[in-house]
Amino acid sequence: MIERFELQTSGKGLYEITDELQRIVARCGLVEGLCTLMIRHTSASLTIQENADPSARRDLEAWMERAVPEHDELYTHTQEGPDDMPSHVRAALTSTTLSIPVVDGRLALGTWQGIFVWEHRTRPHHRSLILHLGP
Amino acid sequence: MIERFELQTSGKGLYEITDELQRIVARCGLVEGLCTLMIRHTSASLTIQENADPSARRDLEAWMERAVPEHDELYTHTQEGPDDMPSHVRAALTSTTLSIPVVDGRLALGTWQGIFVWEHRTRPHHRSLILHLGP
Amino acid sequence: MIERFELQTSGKGLYEITDELQRIVARCGLVEGLCTLMIRHTSASLTIQENADPSARRDLEAWMERAVPEHDELYTHTQEGPDDMPSHVRAALTSTTLSIPVVDGRLALGTWQGIFVWEHRTRPHHRSLILHLGP
Repeated sequence: MIERFELQTSGKGLYEITDELQRIVARCGLVEGLCTLMIRHTSASLTIQENADPSARRDLEAWMERAVPEHDELYTHTQEGPDDMPSHVRAALTSTTLSIPVVDGRLALGTWQGIFVWEHRTRPHHRSLILHLGP
Repeated sequence: MIERFELQTSGKGLYEITDELQRIVARCGLVEGLCTLMIRHTSASLTIQENADPSARRDLEAWMERAVPEHDELYTHTQEGPDDMPSHVRAALTSTTLSIPVVDGRLALGTWQGIFVWEHRTRPHHRSLILHLGP
Repeated sequence: MIERFELQTSGKGLYEITDELQRIVARCGLVEGLCTLMIRHTSASLTIQENADPSARRDLEAWMERAVPEHDELYTHTQEGPDDMPSHVRAALTSTTLSIPVVDGRLALGTWQGIFVWEHRTRPHHRSLILHLGP
């Protein structure tokens, strides 16, 4: 089964989508199986991270901002703005697809795990995800 | 089909689980299909790496320890210990889920590939994985 | 369904394989489902990246070359050449497996997304991928 999910972001950072995905799984009636999601962009990515304390997400963003900074003189691909090439590197270092087992009608995440879209661009973006659900 | 796998770790480093996973695949009787595994934690992760020479694993750990050190003044999420926030960054940079084709009743890994749990915390931890096997 | 795909590389860098994969999906007659690919090596990896402007790929390679350089005195695993251990780190930081939804008989990639083998070794290598396609 194929489902789609759209998200509006408002700058760099992690946006939790766990509840929305759980609702899609419930609506599909999948009791046991596998849910694969893919973000259809190369300047935003996916990650499974701690969803309890927002400071963990802020530190993740801060670490990434230092490891993959803008205005790096290494870059030649600069015509789409200073945040574009860093966003491709960040996407390469994180995930574009995730596959999550479904048990008892729910994504079988651990207690502290949440699913996040990681936006790497500065300006707001409309992000599109595609989901595959199978038994 | 859903299976579970538990692992006790004893500090930072890579723990090979290839043989245990091959046994689970064999026991399930899956001849051809896909095996997806997910680690249900945000301070340990998964990787497929060389399983021949232990020095490769030691170097991977050493590289990560330098790239994502403890006691980084960047971090504000510090109440769970100096190894907690680095473990989230390490998990973001590696993998939480892996999907591996099954052929002739075995995970179709390359000659030198092994599947590893990468523990990012200093103290021993009990780690839980969930597997989905499908045709 | 299991398919195989072979590729000859000629040094470090990203090699696009999107068209070849789309042809395999078409030939299999899969209309809706999931395509999982795994590269059966630990010194090359997979990534989904921008496929429009080659400068983005060159910058990705340049960033990685600086972040994970050869001749790093950290390494003890050096008997297979100065590019071997960096290739394992690069593989750990990127992806060994990718799962991509199939819609209307095609991999449901975004407009600017392409699938790439990222070769991390200096000399030419023969690389082998295995694909699983399911409904």
